[in-house]
Amino acid sequence: MEDIKQYVTKHKDRFINELIELLKIPSVSADTAFSQDVLDTADAVKASLENAGCDFVEICDTAGYPIVYGEKIIDPKLPTVLVYGHYDVQPADPLELWTSPPFEPVIKKTEIHPEGAIFARGSCDDKGQMYMHVKAFEYMIQTNTLPCNVKFMIEGEEEVGSVNLKTFVENNTKKLKNDVILISDTGMISNQQPSITTGLRGLSYVEVEVTGPNRDLHSGLYGGAVANPINILAKMIAQLHDKNNHITIPGFYDNVEELSLEERAEMAKAPFNLDNYKKALDLNDIYGETGYVTNERNSIRPTLDVNGIWGGYTGEGAKTVIASKAFAKISMRLVPNQDWEEITDLFTKHFISIAPAGVTVKVTPHHGGQGYVTPIDSIGYQAANKAYTETFGIPAIPVRSGGSIPIVALFEKELKSKTILMGFGLDSDAIHSPNEHFGIFNFLKGIETIPLFYKYFVELSK
Amino acid sequence: MEDIKQYVTKHKDRFINELIELLKIPSVSADTAFSQDVLDTADAVKASLENAGCDFVEICDTAGYPIVYGEKIIDPKLPTVLVYGHYDVQPADPLELWTSPPFEPVIKKTEIHPEGAIFARGSCDDKGQMYMHVKAFEYMIQTNTLPCNVKFMIEGEEEVGSVNLKTFVENNTKKLKNDVILISDTGMISNQQPSITTGLRGLSYVEVEVTGPNRDLHSGLYGGAVANPINILAKMIAQLHDKNNHITIPGFYDNVEELSLEERAEMAKAPFNLDNYKKALDLNDIYGETGYVTNERNSIRPTLDVNGIWGGYTGEGAKTVIASKAFAKISMRLVPNQDWEEITDLFTKHFISIAPAGVTVKVTPHHGGQGYVTPIDSIGYQAANKAYTETFGIPAIPVRSGGSIPIVALFEKELKSKTILMGFGLDSDAIHSPNEHFGIFNFLKGIETIPLFYKYFVELSK
Repeated sequence: MEDIKQYVTKHKDRFINELIELLKIPSVSADTAFSQDVLDTADAVKASLENAGCDFVEICDTAGYPIVYGEKIIDPKLPTVLVYGHYDVQPADPLELWTSPPFEPVIKKTEIHPEGAIFARGSCDDKGQMYMHVKAFEYMIQTNTLPCNVKFMIEGEEEVGSVNLKTFVENNTKKLKNDVILISDTGMISNQQPSITTGLRGLSYVEVEVTGPNRDLHSGLYGGAVANPINILAKMIAQLHDKNNHITIPGFYDNVEELSLEERAEMAKAPFNLDNYKKALDLNDIYGETGYVTNERNSIRPTLDVNGIWGGYTGEGAKTVIASKAFAKISMRLVPNQDWEEITDLFTKHFISIAPAGVTVKVTPHHGGQGYVTPIDSIGYQAANKAYTETFGIPAIPVRSGGSIPIVALFEKELKSKTILMGFGLDSDAIHSPNEHFGIFNFLKGIETIPLFYKYFVELSK
Repeated sequence: MEDIKQYVTKHKDRFINELIELLKIPSVSADTAFSQDVLDTADAVKASLENAGCDFVEICDTAGYPIVYGEKIIDPKLPTVLVYGHYDVQPADPLELWTSPPFEPVIKKTEIHPEGAIFARGSCDDKGQMYMHVKAFEYMIQTNTLPCNVKFMIEGEEEVGSVNLKTFVENNTKKLKNDVILISDTGMISNQQPSITTGLRGLSYVEVEVTGPNRDLHSGLYGGAVANPINILAKMIAQLHDKNNHITIPGFYDNVEELSLEERAEMAKAPFNLDNYKKALDLNDIYGETGYVTNERNSIRPTLDVNGIWGGYTGEGAKTVIASKAFAKISMRLVPNQDWEEITDLFTKHFISIAPAGVTVKVTPHHGGQGYVTPIDSIGYQAANKAYTETFGIPAIPVRSGGSIPIVALFEKELKSKTILMGFGLDSDAIHSPNEHFGIFNFLKGIETIPLFYKYFVELSK
């Protein structure tokens, strides 16, 4: 039997070219201008699952973008792995900061990726990581080594909050029945040190609108005499943190889990170099909540960040105007036990309460999701760790991530199974940023590692 | 001899149509996309001065947009009036809020303008008001009643800070020599109550840039651990005012003139209805500096307003990003004695000083100008007041305006003459806003009133 290393070596150029074709389709779910492209991407994913060896593949319509479902059932008595991924991508702006167009993938070598990396929106998040599973599955089919049943659920709305996935999962619990859920939509520490994400933050994402006068005004004639919505919005945003960078929303921290000193000491063992971190981001200093270090601030602590702000004249030159309205997109990362819907309510009430007379405020929730913690004593975690240990030659470290995959908590609730987050990306891959890329090493290493997870998961399940 | 009322009645349709043609050219000086249109407008102004009866008209090149100069010298021993105006206009955005396209002028009736108003960008500020002078001059030429010499200086960069006018004035003091400067680029209280602007605020306009990490970051992976430039910018803007809405920049108020209680009591006599003011702007309350009323806040007090803000993701939907940079355009209205260059320096030093570690800040001055006060005992003021009294049947009230015409202070310094601000616009004309308009009544009343100013100015000068 051809082993996975040989198979990857023989087919890697084809694997890369297939991924490049998928990356050329601009499946930006947040922007309706790309809606046909998102639909085209679903078709392409369907075809790839059929070609890889699924017995049955279908495009499942939702109220938004469709979910691609595929399966290969070899024996109902064997365990079933459900692979989740997403084929939609983040918006590519600001376009001018890309060194090559976001939807014209190119392979370039970098310091961290001497074997080359594919530069394109979605290369890592999540088309590239999702496609590793399709190719690992192809290998197991071709070599007749698939040890269990597989189901694929690849959605097109992850980057806009998976708004229609909940209904789909609730209505299809039987179809989606599984023993473990496998997701590659996170990262690992480095190409030398694999890690498995054991915690995810929840998310509440809102948009706020501050309205002052009913029309734009001349700042000379009205300046100083009416509330300027931009100044007021700035003042309201500033009030959301105190001088220690604690969030000031009443009740916000009520359910936040405080880790013990022992747990924090354990976390501090993960390799981290503050000088390199600052250097990589060109920062003269870090910034954050008093009493916590960087790796705690971005994982076990909830946060509030403005993701976008706009109002007034933003063109070339000067315009002496007082805008009628100012806007911001604000997201909060939440830790396990913080309920995102409750937090969204607390934010809304507080934000409206701090608006001064002279303006009106509207808060529109976008989406959200709960945080999640994966137990490291589960069969799934152990199988994943054995797989990484075999391909990397070193055990994986469990880490709590600051990111959010809101559907993980939903899966546990509806499908009663645990999720294993086998990420192969790196923090430096610039996901959600210009010049997103995914290392060729990482892509191929993922394809190598995934069949070993299947093998060990089935063995440990016996 | 045909009197001015008869002349206006006979020619008003032509006057309006000529102005409409001028308004069709989108002379937006702030946006280089319109540069050819700005140049075309200069040509149109030149032609209008020639047609009206100037002996000599020229387009004077500058480092930016040209200045149109025209003159009619009837006798060097007689007084000379220098008319200043501008042919450039403010940007028209947000375009979607215009009820008719900004450069396709239409006449619509409004509650305040039952005889109709011309809706177009620049209709009031300043093409319409500038053109009243051209038509008043035409009348005096046609009826052989011009009592003195006239010079016109119509520039194309007023809306971007008159950046090249200073050099032009300095280099042409002999050509521009005059006994009084006449400008219509302000407003009056109402169509029943004329007023003359006796004070103008100065201006300092800057752009600020806050930079955090060297690239956009995923807010899940980095949120809470690095300074978010948008949050920081909001915090810095919020700090520019204290809880009484005083500006916190050290030294900012050092040269601010404090008016006596008598002077403030005099100001309070101008007609003003706070309920109507709030109703016209759909405001539930006013807002501003503690200790001053609305008509003081927008005239005798300096202010600081954000005119535009932007950063991060501002498109449709949600993007969980921490932006690398955030930006704002900020302007300060200044009162007489505050030096705009000194204030710009104070702002810059202060703004940089309040930036926390973790970000870098850049401040770029755009432009500025000094405030100005016109003495009401001058011959020019008295001539203007007599003219208004004759056409409106009621004397004009002197008012301090919150707006800025930075070149007025420059003219006094270089040309040693006083400026008379004969405005015919109304506050409700929406200058600098969508749906700018200028009443037909106001346009024609201006043409009627201006020749009387010439007459009384020459009489009082004898």
